Amino acid sequence: MMSPLALRHAIRSGQHRGTTTGYSSGYLQGNLAIIPAQHAHDFLAFCLKNPKSCPLIGMSEPGSPYIPELGLDLDIRTDLAGYRVFRGSDNYQTVTDLHAVWRDDLVTFVLGCSFSFEAAITSAGVPVRHIEANRNVPMYVTNIATTPAGVFHGPLVVSMRSFTPSDAIRAILYSDRYRLAHGAPVHLGDPSAIGIADIMTPDFGDAPIMADGDIPVFWACGVTPQMAIRNARPDLAITHEPGLMLVTDMLAEAAEFSVHTQAA
Amino acid sequence: MMSPLALRHAIRSGQHRGTTTGYSSGYLQGNLAIIPAQHAHDFLAFCLKNPKSCPLIGMSEPGSPYIPELGLDLDIRTDLAGYRVFRGSDNYQTVTDLHAVWRDDLVTFVLGCSFSFEAAITSAGVPVRHIEANRNVPMYVTNIATTPAGVFHGPLVVSMRSFTPSDAIRAILYSDRYRLAHGAPVHLGDPSAIGIADIMTPDFGDAPIMADGDIPVFWACGVTPQMAIRNARPDLAITHEPGLMLVTDMLAEAAEFSVHTQAA
Repeated sequence: MMSPLALRHAIRSGQHRGTTTGYSSGYLQGNLAIIPAQHAHDFLAFCLKNPKSCPLIGMSEPGSPYIPELGLDLDIRTDLAGYRVFRGSDNYQTVTDLHAVWRDDLVTFVLGCSFSFEAAITSAGVPVRHIEANRNVPMYVTNIATTPAGVFHGPLVVSMRSFTPSDAIRAILYSDRYRLAHGAPVHLGDPSAIGIADIMTPDFGDAPIMADGDIPVFWACGVTPQMAIRNARPDLAITHEPGLMLVTDMLAEAAEFSVHTQAA
Repeated sequence: MMSPLALRHAIRSGQHRGTTTGYSSGYLQGNLAIIPAQHAHDFLAFCLKNPKSCPLIGMSEPGSPYIPELGLDLDIRTDLAGYRVFRGSDNYQTVTDLHAVWRDDLVTFVLGCSFSFEAAITSAGVPVRHIEANRNVPMYVTNIATTPAGVFHGPLVVSMRSFTPSDAIRAILYSDRYRLAHGAPVHLGDPSAIGIADIMTPDFGDAPIMADGDIPVFWACGVTPQMAIRNARPDLAITHEPGLMLVTDMLAEAAEFSVHTQAA
């Protein structure tokens, strides 16, 4: 197994190019959101008001590409395998290095992703169907609004995993332990109750695979803050390419424990 | 609020006659099962093999009506408001004192009941529909077999509470903390998947009240060991009258904490 530092260096040098899923197992991976400092307060407020979809695990100083508490020798500009650069519209440019687009007013936010709880579920013997089929998780725009903050607003986006009823109960219990990875689900059962017209045609990701008798379970998803950023249309915004996450030096379990301790 | 000791004395003297639900709030209440010593080993094994339906919280020495660890000056023969006495058949006699039927080979088992987790759910603001309607919880015989032990065998019996989907998720999380009160549910959604033909006609308790969009959630139920005892047909068996529980001196939260500590 590669350490998070070795993996970040392999990404930085171009040796590692694909998804980070399954790499540096046990370490916290994060979604990336980079926006100009003028919107940083609003976005921070948006994360705090919507903790299930936006579990904040790190934030930089304005202009700094470093977040020392997330990793040794970590450089946000080079240590992810792919970035999407938005310039005030829905169109984006894909790059593998941010040096050319970096500005001294950019603030980086890192948000927990679902990998930690998926790993916990599968290692407990509960099958996760899209992983077994080597597909991307299906994601849906719901009719549930996030709590807005300043210019940031938009719908809650959810990811869906389906299980037998008894496995659904176990998945709920296991995922609740991973508050930095979206925690417990927000909905289960009838998709139309949260505004999903057809579960077989997700808005993002791949079509689901559902076994007979399966019950769909819906978790808050990291696409939620990305949609809120698109709605805010800052003149510059940068996110990660889906699946190409920031791999941190924080042990997923230890990070969760520290959060629980602070809450107590 | 009456202390558990004061409540047991009020029951013993005949001053308190009804249900114990809502009394001595915060203290663990238990289901009663009294059987001859010749079957005690098998029944203990049955409880250990089926911990979700039979969470054992106390056991007496043969012939002793006392379980000191469950309460000060506690006498099993007088401290419950009603008993059912079975003599090798499904018919039973209802009594309020066990002195006349007591034998020196009787062993008492006390099993956790669902009151603790229901209290946790309701105090968190999640409505429990049968409590709001002042009805008994609906209970169903399933097609799931318990793990047999010696002469004890039979189906898993479940209780059902229905919730909105998001409240169902919360109820699952809250109940999991109360392992001595049946813990997390065993099923949710389609009743026919566990052999329940008509959810509106329970085998025990009152018909359910379900709101539009509710999802049914099923927990292992303390009627399970009672059915296993009836199947074993010992020459003498004694259970409590439904709702008239043994109120112990153990704080429900502290008891759960001690169990979790032992497990670690």
